Amino acid sequence: MTPNRLNGGKANFPEFHNVYIQAQNVAAYMKTGQFPEGTAIVKELTRLLNPTFPDGSRTEPSGRGFFNGEFNGIDLTVKDSKRFARTNGWGFFTFGHHPLPYEKTAAEAPAAVCAECHKANVAKTDMTWVQFYPLLLDRTTEAGWDTPQSR
Amino acid sequence: MTPNRLNGGKANFPEFHNVYIQAQNVAAYMKTGQFPEGTAIVKELTRLLNPTFPDGSRTEPSGRGFFNGEFNGIDLTVKDSKRFARTNGWGFFTFGHHPLPYEKTAAEAPAAVCAECHKANVAKTDMTWVQFYPLLLDRTTEAGWDTPQSR
Repeated sequence: MTPNRLNGGKANFPEFHNVYIQAQNVAAYMKTGQFPEGTAIVKELTRLLNPTFPDGSRTEPSGRGFFNGEFNGIDLTVKDSKRFARTNGWGFFTFGHHPLPYEKTAAEAPAAVCAECHKANVAKTDMTWVQFYPLLLDRTTEAGWDTPQSR
Repeated sequence: MTPNRLNGGKANFPEFHNVYIQAQNVAAYMKTGQFPEGTAIVKELTRLLNPTFPDGSRTEPSGRGFFNGEFNGIDLTVKDSKRFARTNGWGFFTFGHHPLPYEKTAAEAPAAVCAECHKANVAKTDMTWVQFYPLLLDRTTEAGWDTPQSR
């Protein structure tokens, strides 16, 4: 979550990211360090709940911080090594980066919008930002599949 | 997520909250505004990934912000109106608020640790902070079950 105010007023993804992967595909990654063909990863975005401080935070009974607000987008990536060979085997789709309702269909996003950043930063970990997923990061580090920079 | 540095150096919950509820219990809430007897809600906490700025943020390819770090706790609440009658029908359990591994069992937490804050703030929405869950908040507002203050 990268608040606008910490990014010159405009972040590409100021929202919380909630990411969903089917259990059997997580299990396969844990075993091999690669996701199976056909794996779908869904990223759902939620805005910050009405900020009252300049940094995007607000105060609630648990303290001052950042809380989930309304839905603001949903993205999908699918692994198909043949169809998406040009982008390291993954295709990227956006069904809307805005409040509900979202689009019902989506064309593949141009490589510059999604794939290039994944390719530049996480090509070694099957195009996935495992450094932000404790379960995947622990396994990746333990198995020596890669040494992510962030920890 | 309430960073320590925004809370005088020490927040009660500086971590990301990842909350899990079985689908049939979410469906029941969406229909009635109440969770069924036996509903279990699991809250998994993850620390901020190695902060480099005083506010707890760091810089990654997506910008400056807050990213998931290591697991740091798991809590459970269970609805049983008879057993937990004194705390509005919900019992609260902590299996560790620290890095892995967690405890295998837990006794009910004293009311002052969990239940009292829920009772003081979210008694009207079945002891649950629906204002931070867009799906539950939208439904609660739409049905007029309550008018959460946060939005």
